Amino acid sequence: MTDEPETKGTSRRAFLRGTAAASAGLVAAATSVRAEGADPLITEIQPWAQGFGDGVDATPYGLPIKFESDVVRRNVSWLTADVISSINFTPIHALDGTITPQGCAFERHHSGAIELSKDDYRLMINGLVDTPLVFTYADLERFPRESHVYFLECAANTGMEWAGSQLNGSQFTHGMIHNMEYTGIPLRLLLEEAGVKPEGKWIFVEGADASSNGRSIPLEKALDDCLVAFKANGEALRKEHGYPVRLCVPGWEGNMWVKWLRRVEVTENAVESREETSKYTDTLENGTSRKWTWVMDAKSVITAPSPQAPITHGPGPLVITGLAWSGRGTISRVDVTVDGGKTWKTARLAPHSHDKALHRFYLDHLWDGSEMLIQSRAVDSTGYVQPTKTELRQVRGVNSVYHNNCIQTWWVKSTGEAENVEVS
Amino acid sequence: MTDEPETKGTSRRAFLRGTAAASAGLVAAATSVRAEGADPLITEIQPWAQGFGDGVDATPYGLPIKFESDVVRRNVSWLTADVISSINFTPIHALDGTITPQGCAFERHHSGAIELSKDDYRLMINGLVDTPLVFTYADLERFPRESHVYFLECAANTGMEWAGSQLNGSQFTHGMIHNMEYTGIPLRLLLEEAGVKPEGKWIFVEGADASSNGRSIPLEKALDDCLVAFKANGEALRKEHGYPVRLCVPGWEGNMWVKWLRRVEVTENAVESREETSKYTDTLENGTSRKWTWVMDAKSVITAPSPQAPITHGPGPLVITGLAWSGRGTISRVDVTVDGGKTWKTARLAPHSHDKALHRFYLDHLWDGSEMLIQSRAVDSTGYVQPTKTELRQVRGVNSVYHNNCIQTWWVKSTGEAENVEVS
Repeated sequence: MTDEPETKGTSRRAFLRGTAAASAGLVAAATSVRAEGADPLITEIQPWAQGFGDGVDATPYGLPIKFESDVVRRNVSWLTADVISSINFTPIHALDGTITPQGCAFERHHSGAIELSKDDYRLMINGLVDTPLVFTYADLERFPRESHVYFLECAANTGMEWAGSQLNGSQFTHGMIHNMEYTGIPLRLLLEEAGVKPEGKWIFVEGADASSNGRSIPLEKALDDCLVAFKANGEALRKEHGYPVRLCVPGWEGNMWVKWLRRVEVTENAVESREETSKYTDTLENGTSRKWTWVMDAKSVITAPSPQAPITHGPGPLVITGLAWSGRGTISRVDVTVDGGKTWKTARLAPHSHDKALHRFYLDHLWDGSEMLIQSRAVDSTGYVQPTKTELRQVRGVNSVYHNNCIQTWWVKSTGEAENVEVS
Repeated sequence: MTDEPETKGTSRRAFLRGTAAASAGLVAAATSVRAEGADPLITEIQPWAQGFGDGVDATPYGLPIKFESDVVRRNVSWLTADVISSINFTPIHALDGTITPQGCAFERHHSGAIELSKDDYRLMINGLVDTPLVFTYADLERFPRESHVYFLECAANTGMEWAGSQLNGSQFTHGMIHNMEYTGIPLRLLLEEAGVKPEGKWIFVEGADASSNGRSIPLEKALDDCLVAFKANGEALRKEHGYPVRLCVPGWEGNMWVKWLRRVEVTENAVESREETSKYTDTLENGTSRKWTWVMDAKSVITAPSPQAPITHGPGPLVITGLAWSGRGTISRVDVTVDGGKTWKTARLAPHSHDKALHRFYLDHLWDGSEMLIQSRAVDSTGYVQPTKTELRQVRGVNSVYHNNCIQTWWVKSTGEAENVEVS
C-alpha cells in the first residue's frame, strides 16, 4: 500500500480532531479516516481479489493464520526445573471475549502430558463405598451429562507479585488461567452409583500420569458441582488438558482439576498429600502456613493496554479491556482507574455472566496522551472486593506463592508502552 | 489390557442387570463394572505412569490428540464444482456442549479463503452517508467492542432433505453451522460515524475476496445487532473465517456474514445481487421464488446417536443428545421422541441459553434394545414450533434448496447403527 504513510498521517490528524471535539469522560468513537475519493479500495482490484484463495480441502482442521504466530502459549525457563513439570501461560494479552481456545489454553504438568487412549482408560471409585467400581470410557458416556463454562486458575497465578512486580506482561502475571465450556458427568452421579458410606467425608483424586498429582477434596464439594469432564469447548480434551478425562472443580484452584483422572477414593480424612502440604499451602509472615485455601477469590486484570499489548496510536479513543472472575460466583462490577486509584470508572461487562467463569470488561476511554497508572478492581456476587497489593500483604505477608488476587498496576507511558509497576 | 474381553463381559452383564432393575422412563445411571479387587489399575503401574509425558514446550499452540483424527471438517466432492467454492461441514456428530472450535467450524467459500494481513486491511463505508470513511484495522480496534455467542447457519443447511433423506450423518445433514463467541464493533457505531442520510434504507456489504459475495441488508438490522467482528472464541478469526474482519448478522443466514469485509455501502434500495436473486432465494411449488428469507427459523437435530455416531453398547442407559437453535431468540424447549413422533419427552437443556446461539439438549433414555425412530423438535422463545418435513413441504413444495428446518429422523436399529430416513 503505497499510500500508507499518508493514510497514517490523516488518521493521526483525525484522532486529534476527535480528541479536541470530545468532551471529557466517555467518548463517542471519533476514529475516522476520510475516504478521499481515490482510495485504492474503490478504484483498483486488490491483489487478494485477483485470484482464488484456499479450497475447503486445505483445512480439515484449521490453525491460526501465520500473521498470528505470536499468539501462543509461552513458558518461562527459570520457573521450574524442567519443561515436563512446567507451566505454559495463556496469551491473554492478545485474546478478547471470554472463551480460551484449547490450543492456547494454560497448561501445567507435574510429570508431562501423557498419551492415554479411550480404550486404555479406566476410572476407579473405591475406598469408603458400598461397591467399588471401575468405569471404562464407554461406561462414562452413558451417564447423564452437563455442560458449563468454567475458569480454571492455577493457585500460583500472579504468584511472582508477592515479592514485587517482576514479570512484564499479563500473559506471565495472569496467564495461568483458562476458561472453557466443559462437558462431563457430575461426579455426584458416579459416587452415588458406588454408594458413599456414612463415614466417608473426603475424596482423594489421582491422575494416571507418573506424578499422580493426588489431592483431597471435601465430599460436600465433590457432591456439589464437580464434573468428570471429557470435552472442552465442544471437542475432546486435548492431550495436554487430560485426554480423555479430567476432573473439573469449579472455582477452586487448578491443581485440584486432576487430569487423566484414574481414581477417586472416598476417605474419612484428607490424605495430606505432597500437593496439599509442601505445595499449594500459603506461608504467612510468621512462618506458619494456611492450608485448604481452595477457592480462587475475586480477581481481575487489564489485558490491554499492557506490557505485551502497548498502545500503538496517539491520543484519543482507547479501548481498555480485561478479564474478571471469582471462584465464589459471578462478577457484579469491575471498576477501572487510569490514575493509580484516585478516581474510578465502572467498566462495561460483556453479557453471558456465568457462575465461576471469566467475565470480559471494557472501558471506552479518551486518552489525552499522558502517562497513566491503570488498574482494574473486581467486585463479585458475594460483595467481595478485590484487594490492593498492600492490603493483601498486610494480612498475608510476602512469603506465599499462591492465591495472590491483588489489584494489578500497569504504568502506561506517553509512548504507549506499558510496564508492570507497584503503587503504594 | 489383557483383561479387556472379560471386563467387557462383566460390563454387559451389569448393563443387563441395570436394565432389568430400572423402572420404565428416566433412568438413574446403572452403567457400572465392579472392581474385583485385583484390577490392574490398583496393583500394577500402568505403562503411561512409568515415564514422563510431553513438556510444555511441545505445545505452544496445541492440536487435537491423534486418536481424534476423525473429528474434522469434511466436504462432499459432488456438491460444488470446485473446493474453492465449496462447503466444509462441522463434525457435530462428535462434538458436545455448544461452542464450536474454530479449527473444525463450518466454512463456506465462494472463491476460496484469501490471505489478508491486518496492515493491508481496509474497511470502507460509502454511499448515502454524510462522510465516506475508510478504516484501518488499527482504527477499528479503538471503537467500543462487544462479545456475544452466536450461531452461524448456512441457508442451505439440511437442503438435501427437501428431496428426501440422502445424506447419512448429522455432519452432512446439519453441519453447515457453527457457534462461536464473536468479538467486534457494533456496525451501528461505524454507520453513525459516517452519518447515514435520511434516504438510506439498506446497506450492501462486500468481501475482499474475488467473489465479493455482495449482500443487501435492511438498515434496521444493520443498526440493531450486526457486529464487525475480529475475534472468534477469544482469538483472531482464522483465515477461513474471514481474517482479519468479518460481519456477523445474528440469526440470519450465513451467506450474509460476509468474510474479509471490505465495504459497507448505504443505499436506498436493495442491490438485488446474484447472491440474493439467483441464489439464496426459495423456489416454491408454482415456480415463483421467495426472497429476503433471511431469518433462520427454529430447528434442532439429534447429533448422537446418529449415522456417524452409532450406539456401541447393548440395552440400558443411553444419552440422546443434540443441538437446537433459533434466529428469532432462544430455545425454550426441546422434545424428543424415540417412536417416530407417537410420544414425546422433554429434554434437559444445558445452561447458558444465549439469544441466537446454539443450545445443547440431553435426554437420558433407557434403551430396551429394539429399533427406534428418533427425532427432536424445538420450540423457540416466540412460541414457534419446528415443523415436520411433511408440514414444510405442504407450504413450500420440494423445489427449494434453502431454509429447511424440518424435524430430522434417524432410524436406530437394534444393532445400534443409525440411518437417515423419512417418516410420513
